[in-house]
Amino acid sequence: MFLPLTPIRCLHHAAALYGSRVGVVCGGREFTYAELKSRAERLATGLRALGVAPGDRVAYLSFNNHQLFEGYFGVPQARAILLPLNVRLTEPELTTILRHSGASVLLYEDEFSPLIEKLRAACPSVQHWLSIERDYEALLAHEEHADITTYDELTIAELFYTSGSTGAPKGVMLSHRTLYLHALDYALQYRQAATMIDLHTIPLYHANGWGRPQASTMLGTKQIMVRRFDPELVFTLIERYRATDMCLVPTMANALVNSDARSRFDLSSIRHINMGGAANSPELVERVERAFPNCECSSGYGLTETAPVITHTQQKIALQTPDDQRYLRQSKTGWPLPGVTLRVVDSEMRDVPRDGVMVGEIVAMGDHVMDGYYGDPEGTAAAFTGPWLHTGDMAVWEPDNYINIVDRKKQIIISGGENVSSIEVENAIAAHPAVLECAVVAAPDERWGEVPAAIIVLRPNAELTPEALLTFLRERLAKFKLPRIIEFSAEPLPKTGTGKIRKLDLRERFWSGEKSRVNG
Amino acid sequence: MFLPLTPIRCLHHAAALYGSRVGVVCGGREFTYAELKSRAERLATGLRALGVAPGDRVAYLSFNNHQLFEGYFGVPQARAILLPLNVRLTEPELTTILRHSGASVLLYEDEFSPLIEKLRAACPSVQHWLSIERDYEALLAHEEHADITTYDELTIAELFYTSGSTGAPKGVMLSHRTLYLHALDYALQYRQAATMIDLHTIPLYHANGWGRPQASTMLGTKQIMVRRFDPELVFTLIERYRATDMCLVPTMANALVNSDARSRFDLSSIRHINMGGAANSPELVERVERAFPNCECSSGYGLTETAPVITHTQQKIALQTPDDQRYLRQSKTGWPLPGVTLRVVDSEMRDVPRDGVMVGEIVAMGDHVMDGYYGDPEGTAAAFTGPWLHTGDMAVWEPDNYINIVDRKKQIIISGGENVSSIEVENAIAAHPAVLECAVVAAPDERWGEVPAAIIVLRPNAELTPEALLTFLRERLAKFKLPRIIEFSAEPLPKTGTGKIRKLDLRERFWSGEKSRVNG
Repeated sequence: MFLPLTPIRCLHHAAALYGSRVGVVCGGREFTYAELKSRAERLATGLRALGVAPGDRVAYLSFNNHQLFEGYFGVPQARAILLPLNVRLTEPELTTILRHSGASVLLYEDEFSPLIEKLRAACPSVQHWLSIERDYEALLAHEEHADITTYDELTIAELFYTSGSTGAPKGVMLSHRTLYLHALDYALQYRQAATMIDLHTIPLYHANGWGRPQASTMLGTKQIMVRRFDPELVFTLIERYRATDMCLVPTMANALVNSDARSRFDLSSIRHINMGGAANSPELVERVERAFPNCECSSGYGLTETAPVITHTQQKIALQTPDDQRYLRQSKTGWPLPGVTLRVVDSEMRDVPRDGVMVGEIVAMGDHVMDGYYGDPEGTAAAFTGPWLHTGDMAVWEPDNYINIVDRKKQIIISGGENVSSIEVENAIAAHPAVLECAVVAAPDERWGEVPAAIIVLRPNAELTPEALLTFLRERLAKFKLPRIIEFSAEPLPKTGTGKIRKLDLRERFWSGEKSRVNG
Repeated sequence: MFLPLTPIRCLHHAAALYGSRVGVVCGGREFTYAELKSRAERLATGLRALGVAPGDRVAYLSFNNHQLFEGYFGVPQARAILLPLNVRLTEPELTTILRHSGASVLLYEDEFSPLIEKLRAACPSVQHWLSIERDYEALLAHEEHADITTYDELTIAELFYTSGSTGAPKGVMLSHRTLYLHALDYALQYRQAATMIDLHTIPLYHANGWGRPQASTMLGTKQIMVRRFDPELVFTLIERYRATDMCLVPTMANALVNSDARSRFDLSSIRHINMGGAANSPELVERVERAFPNCECSSGYGLTETAPVITHTQQKIALQTPDDQRYLRQSKTGWPLPGVTLRVVDSEMRDVPRDGVMVGEIVAMGDHVMDGYYGDPEGTAAAFTGPWLHTGDMAVWEPDNYINIVDRKKQIIISGGENVSSIEVENAIAAHPAVLECAVVAAPDERWGEVPAAIIVLRPNAELTPEALLTFLRERLAKFKLPRIIEFSAEPLPKTGTGKIRKLDLRERFWSGEKSRVNG
């Protein structure tokens, strides 16, 4: 029989099986799955009572909390489209998104009230500005109403604007069907799901943070909200709730590994950390596994356009790999999830050889791939070749179809006709014990066209000269890959809302001619 | 994006990720997943070359082997409908099914050649009679051709005729979408999937045996074929291939537990046994866990009409349950799988109280439920109330929605107006150490209408009198539930092709007046 696929089913399943168990812990408050289902349904009825019609966009400006979690089920249940906004965006960026999407409702945390006042004038489509602290519970003062049998599974349930540092933001459309199948496929990557306690360290407003809560809900997992990432808060919540699993972007992992506070907490409950959102390194995998004594790391990869997860370094890989190669395998991009087909292709869409050497672009097809960019048929057409979504990520393909991203298309450094992977150079630098974090970008060069430039933050009290670093790197990298510019920064590197290093910003400084060469 | 859901994707995923690894072991031969995909695709091309058209029925008469496994992917890939026949059926039963389905191709093992000669005359729709030993490889002498993007996911991929001991057999229609979602949902119940080695003990031609191979394929598991169930063969294959998982019907589990050969084999690799297909008991769970020292048992429940699995006694339950209740919980029916909604209802389709006491019928809705009976719109209509499939199984519903089947609708014994669960009485008798196996059925009684009648097989050299048994049972059962007829059989109880005790046959003997009472 045909029953529509919708992520709302994840919450229905949890309420049916684990209704009396705690589903979400948020700032000391606990909600059972039965309560969460009731609240999501009353939110849906409340939104309809406000006048929200099927297909309307309902935006959130909020850190991680139970209300945003409820929105992920309640808004689609009202047959509206959830639009979670990145709280780190500027007022003009938010205005662009709210106007482009034509959102009719905005729910916000009071922390953002000054910003809201400015947005009101600029965004006439928004008819309801609702404070999560002051208006939200009244919105829920409605009847429950459940129905999962009459949805059109191909309609859009969520809209995420990509943070894209270049060009206008694009609204990624994800259907009910896409979100449900993503949750099922992602849940298959869980380990020891029966006793898992999940810590939500990544912002839910980012596609990286999503996918997982739906899968965790379907499996009846207790989910602990981290309002905003802070190492001491993360350690405190792990110890208090005996959390077993979390997701981290590499910069978060770096911050946890390097935090002095770590030794004061009992972190023995953590069994599994999945890293994604930016390139990982074998050294970081090893450091994380040492910092969390009972923990195994994996890596995942995806895009907002793919709901988001499309690859994972499955446990099977770790178990089949000799110990000395394990960290390397676990830091790679991995294998496609069920439901997703990936290829690595050249510019003519021909498969590159599966030899671990030839670089091509990853293209994706399958259940996790978006339906397109909202109101942007041209942008959508440009993103696909036939059914294949272009990811813009450059990778090599191993003989066993294991994929390893070597760089973003735009972040490949072309030096004297040689392609230099900025990630490869970063990993080599990060292996030096004095290095806390680093970024490698392309800088202009009269002779070579481009050269690698490294910006490095040292550990407290560590010392390193450019010469000493180059001596270290010469053992690890071909000569043409060595950074020709080495810069030490006293400040942390600039990061995006999800903790990715803003490499395009760093790159820009070299191309506006402000910097001279340190080495070369 | 929309990509059709089809079980063929399971094999494509395995070939892409684990292509060079052994997928199926069959009678000493090993096939990698890449080989299996190639063979299934060449089978599809071969069938089309024979003239098989979309929607045609392709039947198999075969024990478990790699050719039947390949058929599960190759026949749907040819856009035809796979029809696996139960090899234990009689010639008239097979004739009925072949004529009703209008199958145009039959693939058979040579062991069935004498039967095939008789079927040829009776089944004119079958145009191609192909021996698996003599004709199959020639059928595969065609090109590979893969396409998973253009299927209509709602078309039928498999047809299973239910063994139904009463009435005409009915052909259960399962769509591509149903089979794919079933595989995903079922794979979520796997434990330690990364290192699993799956032993196929149940006949693939039965819905009970299916579902699992597709899920195991998607996860890249090594699958060992048991041609036909035999305790020593099972032990041999476990030891040789270090098998970790298998499914058993309770009679199979009983046979393994009671086999003298067991002590000669190393069975330490077995980690997980899932039991289904008939009512389980806490005693059997305990015995199986003792016989396989590193093993945990679970139970599952389903029907041919539900693809088949719809419930499982998830690991979460075992972990949350005190040890003394664990065997009981693990022997019950369990919770619905993701993708399935179950209710326990009275005759007016009202939910019975979730009190663990009130008995109602299980009705099912969701992704695993069939599209109907082939060529039988009236039978289909009778099986459903709205979207709810009637299972005919009577159950109680715990406060946490955990379901426990107490009996088949037709096997409830109504004695003096009291409902007596034949399974409850069987479990009480099976708890006696002298009992090898038993069945309890309704026998006619002038005073009470019906009374419970027990047919018992004792262990070798064990002794038990009706009086001693009744003394034992009086401590365990209410007086109205005590068997009024107790019969000891020197022969094993009669069983169906999947090892279920043929209770309706046993029952029939009492109603034709052949037996007098032993006790009462």
